[in-house]
Parts: sequence; C-alpha cells; structure tokens
Amino acid sequence: MIRVVVLGSGASVPSVQRNLASVAVRYDGDVYLFDCGEGTQRQMMKYRMSYAKAKAIFISHLDADHYLGIAGLCHTLNLAGRKPEEKLFIYGPRGTARIVEGLRCSYGFVDVRDVGEGGVHRGEGFVVSAFAVKHGNNALGYVFEEDAGRNFDKAKCDKLGIEGIMFRELEQKGEVVAGKGKKVKIGDVTIPKKGRKIVYTGDTMRCEAVVRAAKGADLLIHEGTFGEELKMEAAEKEHATVSDAARAAKEAKVKKLVITHISNRYENTAALLKEARRAFAASEIAHDGLEISI
Amino acid sequence: MIRVVVLGSGASVPSVQRNLASVAVRYDGDVYLFDCGEGTQRQMMKYRMSYAKAKAIFISHLDADHYLGIAGLCHTLNLAGRKPEEKLFIYGPRGTARIVEGLRCSYGFVDVRDVGEGGVHRGEGFVVSAFAVKHGNNALGYVFEEDAGRNFDKAKCDKLGIEGIMFRELEQKGEVVAGKGKKVKIGDVTIPKKGRKIVYTGDTMRCEAVVRAAKGADLLIHEGTFGEELKMEAAEKEHATVSDAARAAKEAKVKKLVITHISNRYENTAALLKEARRAFAASEIAHDGLEISI
Repeated sequence: MIRVVVLGSGASVPSVQRNLASVAVRYDGDVYLFDCGEGTQRQMMKYRMSYAKAKAIFISHLDADHYLGIAGLCHTLNLAGRKPEEKLFIYGPRGTARIVEGLRCSYGFVDVRDVGEGGVHRGEGFVVSAFAVKHGNNALGYVFEEDAGRNFDKAKCDKLGIEGIMFRELEQKGEVVAGKGKKVKIGDVTIPKKGRKIVYTGDTMRCEAVVRAAKGADLLIHEGTFGEELKMEAAEKEHATVSDAARAAKEAKVKKLVITHISNRYENTAALLKEARRAFAASEIAHDGLEISI
Repeated sequence: MIRVVVLGSGASVPSVQRNLASVAVRYDGDVYLFDCGEGTQRQMMKYRMSYAKAKAIFISHLDADHYLGIAGLCHTLNLAGRKPEEKLFIYGPRGTARIVEGLRCSYGFVDVRDVGEGGVHRGEGFVVSAFAVKHGNNALGYVFEEDAGRNFDKAKCDKLGIEGIMFRELEQKGEVVAGKGKKVKIGDVTIPKKGRKIVYTGDTMRCEAVVRAAKGADLLIHEGTFGEELKMEAAEKEHATVSDAARAAKEAKVKKLVITHISNRYENTAALLKEARRAFAASEIAHDGLEISI
C-alpha cells in the first residue's frame, strides 16, 4: 500500500486550518516529500509520517512557501543523529542548491541537486521524474511511478503445472522446466501489471503538460488555489482554479483527484468541492491530514 | 496592559504539543517577538497576535530553532503589501544579518542588525536592551523595559488646586500656575511610577547576568529545558533546569516566572511545575498559547 498524506493544503500564507504546501508519500517504509513548506516537520509528527524515514524531498518551485520547511527538518534530523551515509536527497529546479545552502542545511546527509525535466530519482521499485509546468519559468511537477511488474495467473499456472519452487525460478531466470518436461516462460503464466502512479503539480496554471504527465494516474494532486469566480486572478497569478484541476483530471483519465494549495480566503470549501465534482466526480478538496491509500 | 503570549514553548525539536521558541509582547498596539522559531507566523494566527503589527524581532542566538520562522513571516508580510517605510527591525547577536540574508528576506521593510550588550531598540515609551548569557559564546537575553513615569496624586492635586487643563500643562511644561497664583511643579503633585519590565533569557545555563538583568522584573521568561534529574545533561548542553530558572527568579525578586523551552521528553509537566514552585512559588511552566497580562 502506498500511503499519501497531505501535510499542508494551504497557499502562500498559512492559516490556523491549513499549513503550507507539502505532500508525503510513504512507499516501502520510506517517506518522500513533495514540497516542504514552513512547519512541515511538525505536520509530519501530527499526522504520523516518520520524519526519520524521509528519503527525498522534491521541491516544485522556489516560492518560499514551498521550501522553507527544509531547514527545520534537516536541523531535527541532524539532532537525531542522522549519519552522512543516510542521504536525504533534495531535488528542485534551477537555484534549489543555492537556496538550501542559504538555509544552512549543509549537514553531511544532505544531497541537494538542481534538476530539470526527466527522471530525477531512482528508488527501489519506482522512479520520480519531473515535468515543466506553467508558474513562472522555473516550476516543476513530479510523477512518482512504480515499476511495471507482473502477476501470476493462477489458471495458467495450474494448467502448465507451475508449482512450489518453480515460481521463484521463473522470477529469477524467466523460464523453468515444468512437470511434463515442457519449457514454460514467465510471460506464459503472468499478466503484466502496471505500476501505481501519483502525480503532483506544485503551483501551475492549467497546462497540457499536466494532462500528459497524469495520463492514467492512480492519483493526481493538482493545485487549485481559487474557485472559478476568481479565474481572472488565478490566470494573472499563474494558478489553477478548482475547475481547471478537475478538467485536467478528467482529460488525463486519472482515478482520483486531490485539489490542494487552497487560498486562505476559503474557510468553507463546500462550494469548491461542488465545483470540482461537476467537472470530475472523483475529486476531493484537500485538508491538512487528508490521507489516501493506493 | 502589556499582553505577553508564549507562541512556542518547545526546545530544539517541535512536537505536536509545542512549537519552537517564540514569545510575543504586545505593547501599545504593536507586537515584538523574542525569538522566532519555524512556524511562528502560524502560531501568531492561532493565538490572535497580529503578524501585521510586528515591529521588531529580537533573536537570542543562532540555533536554527530560534530564527527559522523569520523567513516565512517576512514572506507573508511582503505578500500582505508591507511597505518599505514600515520597518520590521530584526536584532540578534553577531552573524544574524548574514543568516537573515541567507533566508532571502531582503524585502524593503526588513532592517536587520547584529547587536551586542546594551540598548538595542528604542520604542515609544520603552527600550529593549540585550545582555550576554551563557550558551555558546554568542547568545543574548533581552530586557523589555518601559520608561519610568509618574502618576498624579489625587490628594495633592486637590490640595494645590490642580484641575482641568492644568494637568496637560503640567505634563507638557513641568509646571503651572495654580488657582491661588502659586507655581506648582509636576513633582509636587505626582508619585514616580516604575516602568514595567519583562526579561527573556533565550537559551542559557544558570548565570548571574540573568539575575542582574531581571532584578525586580514583573515577568521573567527563563528557559528550563530539563528537570533537575537531568542537570548533568543540562550543564553539558549549557541549558538551565527548571530549578535553575526558579532560583534565578527568586534571587532577582521578580513578580512572576514563566519557564519555557521545554524538552519534548516531557509530555506531562506536573513534576516540572512542582519542582519550580519549590524554589519559587510564582512559577509557571509555559505551554503554547500561555498568556500573561501585565
């Protein structure tokens, strides 16, 4: 199970209800953060997402509300005795390394890299890649995509006499000699399995790149700072409306949409939810602590 | 009334219960912060201490848990349209200006200055001065002290015929010709009034400088990271125990003591409170949102 928790669902300025941008993904026991606004370490404590297990942080762009929490998190990890070889990778667009230096995060375990479009982090069983979005000229979204795999098909296995130790042999060598002396290849008894896919936009106005990146995703986490009634302001500030996010989700045929980066002008989000679901039924408006399992 | 709110009562690492160090003093409508740990702006929102009214921040020392909130607060003030002439003064020990630059806080309204012992900020009706404490070799405590004034003595005023417009004339010119043609000086009809005094230690082990600075204060806010059972650790890390803080309060004959910067090892502080009150009855263990009026 991949556990996704919205740690901070606010935009630009925090409120009592919403902390600043951060989404945590827990995969195979490790934690990956997408953006890391001020106060993220405390949100991790609040929503039981182990900060000690943080492996990598992916920063979408260099507005202060998306990265200021890096410093405190690293400070805490250092106090907790994190070793230089237990790397915390920090990725972000051009200028990220310089900013992180300014935050005085030069602990031995910090490995910060400026990245552009393409694969940025290879983990055990998944890859995170970046794509350019439309918010200033230096903003990225990220795709967390599990490697494709295969599931054994019980009926086919039974038919061809695959049993016991043969399963492991098939996985290791790709073929095995089955009961009747017949050579069986792994493709004969398995069904390809798509890897799970989560897409995080950071800040962006509506753009095709998101739709392309999110094609068929299990979860799209899209910013939606304003409702449609403020679409002029959204466009001027290069933000998406909730409807923009929902339309992108629909076009990309994702399974679920979570809209985050909600302006502090919305104390009640019932109208935003209604607006989103008009365009895409499987929409949620994020709140701090919202949890999704995939 | 001076309103004092502990915005963050934790030490080094935040917890769900305690945010990082910051104490707000509201005086004459303006807000002064003593330390500004990560997440302080949100704590201000939570405890209704207007961030827009922030006039000055006094940083005790350059451990990250005491200053990382500056960046986010300034970012928010900038988004709120704070003008260059509405200065936010930031004072701290040697190195503060360089750190604040690293935090990319170079907004027009930011005026950051490295300071040493002595008067650092003159406000309308009060002065804030710094004194060296014992935590590393570059740590300061601060004294917020209201100017001395005078209160009119009703009996004396009545006796000498002071009434109506004469009060203002006395305040402006220092003397007035009273009803019977007699010259009355302001000293004849007033009683000197001591200014209110608040002392904030930042991080420090027990030291004489605190006792001297806090002499007769209305409120001493002293760190007390550990209980007496961890006094060795406290000494090694140059922190005070709760008992150290209480003894300092007693020696300085302050009216009230608030002990803050509580280690996250203490979920329950009943024993700490007992320990403090054994040495000094008017002690409190701070929690986030603790409010004192003076």
